[in-house]
Parts: sequence; structure tokens; C-alpha cells
Amino acid sequence: MATIRDVAQRAGVSVSSVSNVLNGRSDRMRKETLLRIEQAINELQFQPSRAALQLKTGQVSLLGLLVPSIVNPSFASLAHEVDIAARRYGYRVLLGNTYRNPAEENAFINDLLSQGVRGVIVASTMVEQKFLHSALQRGLVMVNYDVQSQPGCDTETAPQTDRVSMDNFQAGKLAAYHLIDRGCRRITFATETGKSASRSSRINGFLSAVKEAGLSDSCTVLEGKAREGYGDAEMTELGKQLAEKIAQSSMMPQGIVAINDMMAIGLIAGLRAQNIRVPQDISIIGFDNTLMSALFTPSLTSVAPPLANMATTMVERLMERLADNAIPAGEYLFSPQLVMRESVID
Amino acid sequence: MATIRDVAQRAGVSVSSVSNVLNGRSDRMRKETLLRIEQAINELQFQPSRAALQLKTGQVSLLGLLVPSIVNPSFASLAHEVDIAARRYGYRVLLGNTYRNPAEENAFINDLLSQGVRGVIVASTMVEQKFLHSALQRGLVMVNYDVQSQPGCDTETAPQTDRVSMDNFQAGKLAAYHLIDRGCRRITFATETGKSASRSSRINGFLSAVKEAGLSDSCTVLEGKAREGYGDAEMTELGKQLAEKIAQSSMMPQGIVAINDMMAIGLIAGLRAQNIRVPQDISIIGFDNTLMSALFTPSLTSVAPPLANMATTMVERLMERLADNAIPAGEYLFSPQLVMRESVID
Repeated sequence: MATIRDVAQRAGVSVSSVSNVLNGRSDRMRKETLLRIEQAINELQFQPSRAALQLKTGQVSLLGLLVPSIVNPSFASLAHEVDIAARRYGYRVLLGNTYRNPAEENAFINDLLSQGVRGVIVASTMVEQKFLHSALQRGLVMVNYDVQSQPGCDTETAPQTDRVSMDNFQAGKLAAYHLIDRGCRRITFATETGKSASRSSRINGFLSAVKEAGLSDSCTVLEGKAREGYGDAEMTELGKQLAEKIAQSSMMPQGIVAINDMMAIGLIAGLRAQNIRVPQDISIIGFDNTLMSALFTPSLTSVAPPLANMATTMVERLMERLADNAIPAGEYLFSPQLVMRESVID
Repeated sequence: MATIRDVAQRAGVSVSSVSNVLNGRSDRMRKETLLRIEQAINELQFQPSRAALQLKTGQVSLLGLLVPSIVNPSFASLAHEVDIAARRYGYRVLLGNTYRNPAEENAFINDLLSQGVRGVIVASTMVEQKFLHSALQRGLVMVNYDVQSQPGCDTETAPQTDRVSMDNFQAGKLAAYHLIDRGCRRITFATETGKSASRSSRINGFLSAVKEAGLSDSCTVLEGKAREGYGDAEMTELGKQLAEKIAQSSMMPQGIVAINDMMAIGLIAGLRAQNIRVPQDISIIGFDNTLMSALFTPSLTSVAPPLANMATTMVERLMERLADNAIPAGEYLFSPQLVMRESVID
């Protein structure tokens, strides 16, 4: 690759003259000299090293994106939208798959800092860790995706990082009311044992809706533990397991709210294996609205986070706080959207 | 963030002494001085800028990965495996979604070069473009994923970039023979109009197998054009369209080889809408073996590329040629693997 020296030599000027052109300081230069330097840059296809620019500005045009696994369709959709939003600022996305492993998460954050990347979007629950506080002190600017604070449960008085979530309480309510509106009276909320804040909020929203509708006695929360550890298919497997339990219950629910679409897909497959039809016998609604939900048969009614808007906000916040880290962090809640398809009865 | 100057000041030494420690040149240093510098680095949580190191070595520990869309499950799986392989070399993955848009692809490659990233894995068909040759001249080292050369069709005498593919001819054969072994005599190969090299190879492998089996007269290639432009769901939509045609044909096939799993899923959904059962009435086999194929009902029999091995080879080749660009590029073909599930009759 051509260096700045090669350009200077070809144009017959000093290295500092070339540097002046590269840094927009050509106003006092003779037009002829400027043209000669530009011609040499073109002829040699000279690409000024970002490393050299970065030493001046201390920043690179990269954002980190930490996800448990890009194979999970909801994180693939997130990565897609973050990429689109980052491009508007001329930024690119550095991807880290961390498999919900704290050591992997720490390694990714360390690598970001050592690459000069200071902005990161984190889709995981590591926010409370001691390690992270150290990274924030070292200049990291972070947005947490889908980590909603809970009233009374937060030990921090002021959050150190921005938080961008779908309003999971409203999302749980929206799912329950959609099933209630379609005539379901017995509704089960199917979830995995072990609640994150966002999952708890969905369940609380569901319980609030069925209580308002006077259906508390006929609605339940059904929990199960995935046989496998964290993987890409474990929620679908859990859905199949829970479907067996539901099929054996004396009083089957008329509707099921699944904690996410991956579980909903497992529930539908498990119920079909028991000759229970969706939506004719049981209606099912999920959360996330991934590509898979649209392609599955029956296609899945789902409560969708407005991902494009959320990604835009996350990237905007990073840009603002990268420019001025003194801006206080905030919490941003987005209204859920119901996407109606075939898995809920008309 | 602490700078090298802060460290030097705290340790009471010169900046060049700190630099010597950071660059492993501490052998002539007094032990006491070394300890003082190390202590200052720890206390200030000093992170040497990769930018500064990069100016010396001219490289960053990043690989580019260009995919049409990360939302497509086969590219999400690829990104996952490339990430794992890159990590073994201490590298991270910079992701570009380019939506099969040449301008987007060029912009991504330009951004890689300007960020100092010189190695890229390209899962797209832009390899022939003039732009790319210019990027290669500027020092880019590239591996093409799933771009198989075709005998007689290649204008290049020697490839400028490594090519890593599943052996698509063998894959097409493997799919056809699996259906023939299970008793299918009338077999349709369903594909999208407009063949890439890897698609042509699959079709040729299929035709070779049915010819060997003496079934050329009862086996056909069915093509269709997706209504939408490039998107994440267009192959599934096309599968649904082709299912209608197949259902209306006077002599329905007993087996279908779909050009990929996304189309296979659309075919199954489309056939089900016509009350044609998979696999009882028609067996279906796809290619790619994505997560979705395992979760769909019926789960999909698929010809799988050995992705982990392929990703390892791609990253190894980049590392070797980043170290020595004079190493000639080569073509690496991987044997396909049949993953048997429920969509083919026993």
C-alpha cells in the first residue's frame, strides 16, 4: 500500500504538505500544488490510515454490539437495525457473541477498549457486574438493550448507562388483552423459570390485565426449566415440554401467552404432536416478532418491539454521550406493537 | 482515560521508558523502575491504544465479514462460526450487511481499508467486479464464501482470492440420491430463476444423479421468480408460489429438492395449504441446515455445509495471507453432510 511518503515523493512536495491536504488545511496552498497532491493521491490510490487519524481524535468509527448469540433470530434482527442506524453516522458494527458467559462478555469489552472502540450496545444482563463499572471508568459508553429497571428493585439511584427497552409491562398487557378480546377466558402465561427484569415485567403486565378483566381465577403462569443450558434452541425445546404439560391438564387453556416467539414455536409444535390445533383449539401469542414468526405455519401473532426506532435511539444516545460523557444516562421505553397473524383465533 | 503521559508522570519516569515496557523492551531496565511503571499502569487502568500499536504494525485485530443480511439464518450461522474461528487468533468480527447492493458492498470494503482492516470474508457474488480488483491492489486480503468456480466458465487463469465452498455438485447429488434411496422416482428440483455458480452446481449434481439412476425422464427442474426483490423472506414466498404450481400439476412429484432451506419451508407451508402432507405425500429436502430447519414442523432434512470447518479454513487462510500476501490463492471444497429429519419419508 502507498504511504504518505510515496504521495509526497510523487507530487514533489513535503510530507507535511500532503498531511495538510489530508486534514483540510489546503486554503493557503497554491492551487497547482494542491492539484499535484490530489493527483498523486489518486494515482497511488492512497488511503490515509484511520490509525493515524485516530491518534489525533482518539476515536474509531466503530460501535460494539454484544449479543448472546447472533444465531438467535431476535438478536440477528437487532444487529440488522443497529447496523442501519450506525451507518447514518458513518459507523460500523463490531459484533461480539458472548453466549451469556461473563468471561466472554468481559473479554469482548476489553477488546473494544483496546481497539479504541468506546461505544457499545449490550443485549445481556451483565449490567450489574463489578467489571462493567471498571470499564465505564475507563471511558466506555454503554447502552443496555432490553434491561428495564424495576420500581423498588433497583439499587442504583441513578443509572450509569442508558437503557432502551420495549415497555414490557404494556407488552404483557397487550398480549393478554388481545386473547381476552378474542374470547379466551382461560389463559396461561408460559415462561422459563428464572426471571430477568424484562420477563418479570411481561408477566406482571399479563397478571394486571387478567385481573382487570376479572379472570385471575382462570389464568395462570406456567414455568419450566430448559433441559439444556443456554443455546439457540433451548426455548423451543422448553415450549415442546410445556405443551405436553398443557395437553395433560384437566382444563386446557383457550389461549397461551409465550414469553417469546422461540417458545411459542415450540408450543405450537408440541401441541400439534398431541393433536391439539393452533388456533382452532388454543390460540398462541409470542413476543419479539422475528423473521421466523412470519415464516412458521401457522404464522405467529406476536408483540413486536419497534426495533428500528429503538436502534436509532440507542445509536443516537451513544453518539451524544461519546461527544459528552457528562450527559446523564436515561431510560427509554418504547410502546409495543401487536402484529396479528394466524396463531390467534379470529 | 489515562494517557501514556499520565503513567510516566505517576511513575516518575520518561514517556519512552513507559513505551519500552509496553513494547516488551524492559530487559535492561532496573527492576524497581519496571515495578513502578507496572504499578502506575494498573493504578491508572491504562489501556495502551491499539491505534498507537497499529501505526507500528499496520494492522488491527479485526476481520471484516460481508453478508447480504444477518437476518437470513444461514448468514447468522456463518457469522457465529467465523466469530469462533477468529477468536482463536485474538481477532474480532466487523460485520457488514450489504443487501446484495454493489454500492453498499463497495462502501463496506472502503470502510474496512480506512479502518486498517485488511482481511475480509465475503459471502456474496461481487467477486468479479472491477472495484474489488482495486481493493485487492490496495492490500485487501479476501476469502470468498460459497463462490465456487465452474470449469470452463472462469475467465481468470488464477484466482486472486481464496474460495471456500461446500462441494455443491456433490451436495446436489447427495440430496437426489437420498430421495431416490427412499423410493422417490418423480423428483423436482425447485429453484429461483437466475443461477449463481453454486446454485448451478447443485442443479448439475442433481441432474447427474437422476441420470445415473435412469430417472431423467421423470425428474425436472422447476424455476420461479420471486415477486419481491432481495429480502429475508423472498425465498420462502417463492416456495409457497411453487407449491401451488406443484399441487396443480397432473403428475405430482414424490420428492422435491429445494435450492435452500428457506425455500423448503415455503414449499412445506404451501403444500400444507393445499392439503398435501410432508413427508407422507411428498418428501422435501433442502440445503443449509439452519437453526430454523431444526425448529420447523416437520423438521427439515437438509444438506449441511460443514460450517465450523469452513470458517476455520477461511480464517486460517486470511491469517496466512495477511502474513504473506505472496502465497497464491486457492480453492477449498468441503464435503456436504446429510442431516436427516422428518421431511423425508422413512
